[in-house]
Amino acid sequence: MISKLIDRIESTGAPIVVGLDPKLGFIPDDLKKKCFAEKGENLEGAAEAFWQFNKEIIDNIYDVVPAVKPQIAMYEELGIPGLITFKKTVEYCKEKGLIVIGDIKRGDIGSTSESYAVGHLGSVTIEGNTFKSFDEDFATVNPYLGSDGVKPFINVCNKEDKGIFVLVKTSNPSSGEFQDRLIDGRPLYELVGEQVEKWGLESMDGSYSNVGAVVGATYPEMGKILRDIMPHAYILVPGYGAQGGKGKDLVNFFNKDGLGAIVNSSRGIIAAWKSEEYVQYDGNVGAAARAAVKVMKEDIEGALLAR
Amino acid sequence: MISKLIDRIESTGAPIVVGLDPKLGFIPDDLKKKCFAEKGENLEGAAEAFWQFNKEIIDNIYDVVPAVKPQIAMYEELGIPGLITFKKTVEYCKEKGLIVIGDIKRGDIGSTSESYAVGHLGSVTIEGNTFKSFDEDFATVNPYLGSDGVKPFINVCNKEDKGIFVLVKTSNPSSGEFQDRLIDGRPLYELVGEQVEKWGLESMDGSYSNVGAVVGATYPEMGKILRDIMPHAYILVPGYGAQGGKGKDLVNFFNKDGLGAIVNSSRGIIAAWKSEEYVQYDGNVGAAARAAVKVMKEDIEGALLAR
Repeated sequence: MISKLIDRIESTGAPIVVGLDPKLGFIPDDLKKKCFAEKGENLEGAAEAFWQFNKEIIDNIYDVVPAVKPQIAMYEELGIPGLITFKKTVEYCKEKGLIVIGDIKRGDIGSTSESYAVGHLGSVTIEGNTFKSFDEDFATVNPYLGSDGVKPFINVCNKEDKGIFVLVKTSNPSSGEFQDRLIDGRPLYELVGEQVEKWGLESMDGSYSNVGAVVGATYPEMGKILRDIMPHAYILVPGYGAQGGKGKDLVNFFNKDGLGAIVNSSRGIIAAWKSEEYVQYDGNVGAAARAAVKVMKEDIEGALLAR
Repeated sequence: MISKLIDRIESTGAPIVVGLDPKLGFIPDDLKKKCFAEKGENLEGAAEAFWQFNKEIIDNIYDVVPAVKPQIAMYEELGIPGLITFKKTVEYCKEKGLIVIGDIKRGDIGSTSESYAVGHLGSVTIEGNTFKSFDEDFATVNPYLGSDGVKPFINVCNKEDKGIFVLVKTSNPSSGEFQDRLIDGRPLYELVGEQVEKWGLESMDGSYSNVGAVVGATYPEMGKILRDIMPHAYILVPGYGAQGGKGKDLVNFFNKDGLGAIVNSSRGIIAAWKSEEYVQYDGNVGAAARAAVKVMKEDIEGALLAR
């Protein structure tokens, strides 16, 4: 699966993933009103607003970015109607040719991790019939439970040509509380990074592995070290834009060939229509999102050229 | 919320939580056939079988145990129909007076963790109306992302009188890969345990905190140390029974007053009907489950008396 993602990155020239993390506050009032009128001022109405908002974004970016990353928490907050929107969003993005990274941060022990892996990346067999439950292309995985928790995902990746990104160093301010603690003189995230590289050798797909890593744009120096520790891991980089990361912070995550990293922006793109920077789009969600992708692409390109 | 759980533990005399982790292999053929005939040999049929199987268990144990712990991964594997069964199971257990611990192992950064917290423990407000999405009483939480990831859960616990159990030392064989690594001479799980105690002081409810910990029955020596490090944390103990933990392994998790721990068994109870030990129940799922609860209760009581 990573080779498919790389193909799409190369054909769009954009190492960018758009985070589809809707919130009611990001959605224009007239669209919300319409959805509440259709489905009620309730979870169904909010989930419908998420769906129509996502569709507007997707229709305007699908040809300029390789991938999207819906954050399942936003949908799960709305319960079953929200998760129906999550599923519809995944399906629609795939129809549009986008690679879908399910930002699910799951992780459990053995057979329980297997259930998550099967539900999100694999196939369920019932009386000999095969079904796909959520069917993302990639999923993010939490490593705290160790290999038992991660390997069931890798097995499914190998069986179904899918991929994962394992949390190594997250973008949030308190990520260092445990991740930076020194073990034999080295931070925990480096040890997790070494395991990601090892796990990845079990699922190679071209020059890179289907087992990638999550490393926050907010920690560029750590990104540099992790880039070296995990030569075969694609790095999914959150934290660009709204969380403070800039183009120049990103260069360390990329290899010399310009590959090796894909940068996420969520609010910076899906809520661009609310930003003063995009006021000329007059509240047009899709057009502002497309313009914000262009600005982000140029920011990253410029930073990579200047290094 | 922890005080409500303790009341139920005291009134049933059983520091036991039944893991509602259905698998098709645990469900009798005739029940599966009936559900497939009703809903089809598909995800809906499997989810219906999970629901009817759960109901049979719940109807036979609700008066002898304080709590249940549905593992959401099993339901998520079946996609939307599975999650509908998860929600129905939570609702039905609460109607029956059971405390529901959602074994969701979620954890993300800031506002994303907040979405999980609101979706599972809190209330969503839409145009001034309030909705509960999944509405468990407790949720399990993964600490790898640090305080940013955990505090949004604690805020919801305080607002809505709910609780969490934070993963500290998990029951699986490879849990030591990261959790046991030494930091300044002490394993990571002890540092996480110290944070759990600190976090917990923000959500006290009687002598214990709404912030508890998960520590596997398979690591009784570590349980002893963690019991001391986290005097206000209730410990949720998985790994009893099928994973190898026995009553005598559990004593370290309890305080002298007989409180402080609640032990989970999943397969050992819900699949008891398949075990030779319960062959006299002739495949009756509910009666075998009830008998297995009694055996487990006596095992724990005996071990606590013998210490």
